[in-house]
Amino acid sequence: MSYKAQQLDEVKVFKDPVHRYVRVRDQVIWDLIATPEFQRLRRIKQLGTSYLTFHGAEHSRFNHSLGVYEIVRRILNKFADQNVAIDQDTRLISLCAALLHDLGHGPFSHSFEKVFHLDHEDFTRQIILGHTKVNDILTRVAPNFPEQVARVIDQTFENTLVVHLISSQIDADRMDYLQRDAYYTGVSYGHFDMERILRVMRAVDGELVIKSTGMHAVEDYIMSRYQMYWQVYFHPVTRSAEVILINILQRVKDLYEQGYTFKVAPTHFESFFTDKINLQQYLHLDEAIMLYYFQQWQFEDDHILSDLCDRFMNRRLFKYVEYDRVDEERVYNRLVQLFKNVNIDPKYYLIVDKSSDLPYDVYGGLDDLYETMPIYLRMPDHSLKELSAHSPIVEAISGKRRTDYKLYFPLDDLEDLPDDANKREIFTILAYQM
Amino acid sequence: MSYKAQQLDEVKVFKDPVHRYVRVRDQVIWDLIATPEFQRLRRIKQLGTSYLTFHGAEHSRFNHSLGVYEIVRRILNKFADQNVAIDQDTRLISLCAALLHDLGHGPFSHSFEKVFHLDHEDFTRQIILGHTKVNDILTRVAPNFPEQVARVIDQTFENTLVVHLISSQIDADRMDYLQRDAYYTGVSYGHFDMERILRVMRAVDGELVIKSTGMHAVEDYIMSRYQMYWQVYFHPVTRSAEVILINILQRVKDLYEQGYTFKVAPTHFESFFTDKINLQQYLHLDEAIMLYYFQQWQFEDDHILSDLCDRFMNRRLFKYVEYDRVDEERVYNRLVQLFKNVNIDPKYYLIVDKSSDLPYDVYGGLDDLYETMPIYLRMPDHSLKELSAHSPIVEAISGKRRTDYKLYFPLDDLEDLPDDANKREIFTILAYQM
Amino acid sequence: MSYKAQQLDEVKVFKDPVHRYVRVRDQVIWDLIATPEFQRLRRIKQLGTSYLTFHGAEHSRFNHSLGVYEIVRRILNKFADQNVAIDQDTRLISLCAALLHDLGHGPFSHSFEKVFHLDHEDFTRQIILGHTKVNDILTRVAPNFPEQVARVIDQTFENTLVVHLISSQIDADRMDYLQRDAYYTGVSYGHFDMERILRVMRAVDGELVIKSTGMHAVEDYIMSRYQMYWQVYFHPVTRSAEVILINILQRVKDLYEQGYTFKVAPTHFESFFTDKINLQQYLHLDEAIMLYYFQQWQFEDDHILSDLCDRFMNRRLFKYVEYDRVDEERVYNRLVQLFKNVNIDPKYYLIVDKSSDLPYDVYGGLDDLYETMPIYLRMPDHSLKELSAHSPIVEAISGKRRTDYKLYFPLDDLEDLPDDANKREIFTILAYQM
Amino acid sequence: MSYKAQQLDEVKVFKDPVHRYVRVRDQVIWDLIATPEFQRLRRIKQLGTSYLTFHGAEHSRFNHSLGVYEIVRRILNKFADQNVAIDQDTRLISLCAALLHDLGHGPFSHSFEKVFHLDHEDFTRQIILGHTKVNDILTRVAPNFPEQVARVIDQTFENTLVVHLISSQIDADRMDYLQRDAYYTGVSYGHFDMERILRVMRAVDGELVIKSTGMHAVEDYIMSRYQMYWQVYFHPVTRSAEVILINILQRVKDLYEQGYTFKVAPTHFESFFTDKINLQQYLHLDEAIMLYYFQQWQFEDDHILSDLCDRFMNRRLFKYVEYDRVDEERVYNRLVQLFKNVNIDPKYYLIVDKSSDLPYDVYGGLDDLYETMPIYLRMPDHSLKELSAHSPIVEAISGKRRTDYKLYFPLDDLEDLPDDANKREIFTILAYQM
Repeated sequence: MSYKAQQLDEVKVFKDPVHRYVRVRDQVIWDLIATPEFQRLRRIKQLGTSYLTFHGAEHSRFNHSLGVYEIVRRILNKFADQNVAIDQDTRLISLCAALLHDLGHGPFSHSFEKVFHLDHEDFTRQIILGHTKVNDILTRVAPNFPEQVARVIDQTFENTLVVHLISSQIDADRMDYLQRDAYYTGVSYGHFDMERILRVMRAVDGELVIKSTGMHAVEDYIMSRYQMYWQVYFHPVTRSAEVILINILQRVKDLYEQGYTFKVAPTHFESFFTDKINLQQYLHLDEAIMLYYFQQWQFEDDHILSDLCDRFMNRRLFKYVEYDRVDEERVYNRLVQLFKNVNIDPKYYLIVDKSSDLPYDVYGGLDDLYETMPIYLRMPDHSLKELSAHSPIVEAISGKRRTDYKLYFPLDDLEDLPDDANKREIFTILAYQM
Repeated sequence: MSYKAQQLDEVKVFKDPVHRYVRVRDQVIWDLIATPEFQRLRRIKQLGTSYLTFHGAEHSRFNHSLGVYEIVRRILNKFADQNVAIDQDTRLISLCAALLHDLGHGPFSHSFEKVFHLDHEDFTRQIILGHTKVNDILTRVAPNFPEQVARVIDQTFENTLVVHLISSQIDADRMDYLQRDAYYTGVSYGHFDMERILRVMRAVDGELVIKSTGMHAVEDYIMSRYQMYWQVYFHPVTRSAEVILINILQRVKDLYEQGYTFKVAPTHFESFFTDKINLQQYLHLDEAIMLYYFQQWQFEDDHILSDLCDRFMNRRLFKYVEYDRVDEERVYNRLVQLFKNVNIDPKYYLIVDKSSDLPYDVYGGLDDLYETMPIYLRMPDHSLKELSAHSPIVEAISGKRRTDYKLYFPLDDLEDLPDDANKREIFTILAYQM
Repeated sequence: MSYKAQQLDEVKVFKDPVHRYVRVRDQVIWDLIATPEFQRLRRIKQLGTSYLTFHGAEHSRFNHSLGVYEIVRRILNKFADQNVAIDQDTRLISLCAALLHDLGHGPFSHSFEKVFHLDHEDFTRQIILGHTKVNDILTRVAPNFPEQVARVIDQTFENTLVVHLISSQIDADRMDYLQRDAYYTGVSYGHFDMERILRVMRAVDGELVIKSTGMHAVEDYIMSRYQMYWQVYFHPVTRSAEVILINILQRVKDLYEQGYTFKVAPTHFESFFTDKINLQQYLHLDEAIMLYYFQQWQFEDDHILSDLCDRFMNRRLFKYVEYDRVDEERVYNRLVQLFKNVNIDPKYYLIVDKSSDLPYDVYGGLDDLYETMPIYLRMPDHSLKELSAHSPIVEAISGKRRTDYKLYFPLDDLEDLPDDANKREIFTILAYQM
Repeated sequence: MSYKAQQLDEVKVFKDPVHRYVRVRDQVIWDLIATPEFQRLRRIKQLGTSYLTFHGAEHSRFNHSLGVYEIVRRILNKFADQNVAIDQDTRLISLCAALLHDLGHGPFSHSFEKVFHLDHEDFTRQIILGHTKVNDILTRVAPNFPEQVARVIDQTFENTLVVHLISSQIDADRMDYLQRDAYYTGVSYGHFDMERILRVMRAVDGELVIKSTGMHAVEDYIMSRYQMYWQVYFHPVTRSAEVILINILQRVKDLYEQGYTFKVAPTHFESFFTDKINLQQYLHLDEAIMLYYFQQWQFEDDHILSDLCDRFMNRRLFKYVEYDRVDEERVYNRLVQLFKNVNIDPKYYLIVDKSSDLPYDVYGGLDDLYETMPIYLRMPDHSLKELSAHSPIVEAISGKRRTDYKLYFPLDDLEDLPDDANKREIFTILAYQM
């Protein structure tokens, strides 16, 4: 029997708190899960620094990747029941793409990418196509199989239906992470009736659409997404931790460029400083490695680096105030000066953070096609109607890509300042309730 | 106002998936949570290697410690409603002890303690009484306060009721971890009606007893414990990962003693090899640090160390067969010889693992007073009756401390052996279904 | 000790699937629950005919009334923690009003009131103030106590805070029924974080307001309400059953007025036909009595009555099409004629049903003060802001009191008609997909 | 296409709180659900008088019957995946039997059958085979089809595997009612991992067996059953209501036989008094009818009947003491005499109730084959082992058919007695804590 058709003797299951069981029958999927590249995802948290706000959010991208695979597996089974034509090769491509779609994420992915100007999607592609165990397995299926899987993930695969399973406004990726992140954080948002959504999904002309009778379930999904976005993903305490993390990386880079002599040299980071990133080095960098360095760097002589590392490791986070970007530029510049006056480096200690930099979004409707296609309802007369044109709730939310600005600073250090004019002015400007 | 009586302006809450909210009002508790020693628990998994079996089990001891605190807080509130006399000092001692009871756990605690002959309870005591931030805060309450908290944890505190809240057969510790571990693993065991148990708890002569009307809720708790014990805590795949972990640590120690030159020296471990353990060094060792070394040691020249680290990081675990300790000693010795014949070192690759070494137990009833006091029911006539004497279900389980032996080995390596008499005899003995 | 201060020896609990436990300590509450008037609520379904759509929705108003009491009890406990001044008398008035607020509901309340032009709120008042066991108990507290309880329910009580606990846009009544109806129907809507809402409720100048930090929990509540409204309460199949029920009652009334000789006389209904309704008669009428008559009337000679009763008992419901009220009046009149042509009486068999007649509503915001006061958020600067002015989601929903018209008819009977011009025209007009 | 093979255009679903959705595709099943005989089950509560103890337990046998159907449907799908040979006819027979297995239940079934010496299983058979709509539909499939369905239910069908799906120690019937009754009562027992049990079920030689790897899930099921048995089904308050119900029926029968002139004659019951029970009359008797009579009979002149009806309707239940059957017969006789002395008729007011009369049981193991076959585990070597021989927990429970005796009496009436020697002796004997 060809490798691609090989089946395990019996279904193997992973106990999963969100989907109860993740089921695997294909040998290829089983082998992919066992690769070092996939196992590495166990050492990368799904929600980055959110565990410092929601202590339950310690789950990894390994968790989520299995979940996305499972949802796609179920959708394909439903399609088989509905006689949607998906051949065995396309089925296996879809399952592999679902499983591997996040493979390129780095440690504390968002911060990391921001400082080093990287894109995890590039790395996902490189891992699938490069010299890796994942590539060995995919190539064993067929020589062009890795390329096909990669193209589903980067949305250039010819079968758009398969692309939309993983990348659309109501894809398996989002459906898994909303439920999973809600489960682990313990928030009461994030619940929607996925089983019903799967039942009302239809494949029409290579698009994934929703029977209009299922509109309310989709509204619920969009609302969950909206609530998770503001309540969890954009939580200001999480962003505070991320600000510190970014500043650690920035400081290390700055020190490295200045020729600073580290007690513990940033060996694992060097290729990122020099822009000659080697795939193997990238794969060796996980969150355990990051935390090892952060812990060691608490004892560096550079006060800024040691302080920021201590803050991150021991959760001494920055506080924040709302920052209105228009009116306060002059005020901001004054704050910068005041920080300098009191010897607190504003580059690392006075940070404006924009929510719109974050990788999450609300549903954009038709006006917002920048990333993924909108959700279409199939009406009883079989016409298609974009969701926000039919649902007042979704219309209310869609396109409301509010940018939210906050100003972060080390309140503890400010409080420790001697009580002089600088301090008083800083506190007056910040108007922070003490 | 004295420090010990200081209250936060309003209740602060932690969102918790198990108890919904953990509530803090006492300034002392709030300050303890913010210490580096307590934050360190975020980097130590509650269930050690179980995440390699149950991918959801990535939760930390930080999670669990807050949970135990919350349960004790609720019990004390119930006691206040029942007019059980617990003064404010004793209340605060209890809450601190609940929060801090696991503070001394090391990374992958069980394996670590086994190899280095350590006891996390000693370290808990040292952290509470030594030069730490935790000690600073406790001492600020009163000079003898740290000692009082430590004595609740090591069960020598004079108020036995308070001791039993944290250390008895139905204590806050067990009630939290059963529910929490069930939640994160996703298994359907581990559920019991804690709210009802809290309602039927009574304080009688310094003992925690259960009104007999609540017996069935306690039976359910005992059953949950029994099921979690066999289904989760003793899972053979988890033990396989632990066997490998122990062997890594053992191998590093052996190499260190042999004067082997490491590419990446085991700096963080040195004090453990020499038995001169410094508290600060202990506190620096967390699971991120361990994983850093394991990743690096995949590239050591020593084949055994690099192989074992690769196995742990990439989840290439040992397989196992049941091992009957009586009949097979001779057979075991033969296997040892055969492994040597084929150049697989049995010291690291042929391991008998006993479940009774694990820190979990089933309910022991009256016959099994080695650790903690049994559960007493308060009958309608106010007499006390030990649970297993009243419940046939509990009687069936109690004292059934089955020891379960398994023999672990690297099936993959064995399969790769050339097909000769040694290999055939090994497989015949193992009778492993391939 | 005065009756009003009497406490049970220990807290008595009712196991409740929604709130886990309902707790009673006051003797007065305990005695009220035991009255025949309150026990009668066990024989009146919370959701009327919804059980014919959602088979789980068989729960009674007894269930719900205990739930509302429990929520108010919890809010009052929170208020006590916040030092909101509510004296013991007001507390007991609030609890009694919460428990008794639905006491006057009749069987299949909505339909019943519609046919007989009754208002259950009048009956609630009459039961509280009239010659009943409930009144005996309340009077034993104090002579004016029944009147005070009644005034909370009819919203004329001077303490508006107490009124709003039971009658406002986010009152205990709605919070209970949304969760309860979701639980019993099994739909995935209806979930919101009530515990969080209770934590952010504040009493400000006699109003119940919400701390703005809790806005998202309230949004979730409003969304649940919106979804339950369209998905459960206004479900067209439920309305079909209600249309039949109304027509049964109407037909009985018509026959009674025509002097028809019933095999089983509508004894229990007579006072309703004559508008001289006696409170005791009202209290004897519950859903079991209704169903008794419906079953017996399946064997009446009047074909319309027997057919409608058979339809209701055996769930042979009407089908429906959307009905656009503006354009189709001429068409509707034509349909009436066609029904007459084929000897199907349109009075009972061709029914336009308006959703706006139903007792449920969506959140109205400021524009819609007809019934209950809107929800105010307390902003960080302690100003109050109406919810829909602050939340785009709520704004999208509020005031969208869509009226939805449907036309109901007996498809089965129409299909059995001989295939002539009348039939063809009826089916063409209805354009019902067969 | 033959009727038996007809499929609905698309799957129709019933929203179910326990199984989320009940799915129907077969036209035959759809038609059976629509029959008056099946719809009648909506008017018969699943748990009889339990709603007077657990107010949530108002769910009907209609609920449960759909649930059993759904579980059998899922098991048959699993079998199809495992290539267990079950032909289409056998499949449809199984589904029909699952749906209809409780069709013959009367109102408050247990009490009713006890007084009138009936057996609901006889009626199930009569409804399937007699002149009913259900029979019409089944006969339309094939002339001998009703008989085949009936034989599955009465356990004489040749395919024992199919019989065991509905009648064995781990059948769909029990799996549904345990979960369903737990859901509606809100108790925390009754949960087990049904999905896992379905996964480890195997068909071996016409028996339903369980793979031994699933033993712990089955233990959990057995424990749930045990806990539900003692905590819900045998709850003494529920039995008190049942004692009163039985006595109402007994009193009516006695009065009828004595020629008493009823204000409201027991028309619907007459055939039961005379033992000439007509199937149509049986089908007309549901719980609404019963409650109609009970309400009316509150106003009968016979004091015993009116009092008992008032007690049932308004939940003025009897109290109880434990009754030891051996020692106290003499004492019991003395109590009978004392009751007569004070003019309280012991026939209706002093009742010994035996739990073993109830239709629920615990797992019996091998010693207890009176009803249904025990559970067998399939061991790794494919041998079969009876569950209680392998599980110490199940062994502890199995065969423990404790009979529990309670003595019920009207404490309120006894308290109202004048304070004389009779009263004092009664209270001394009952030793009831007042």
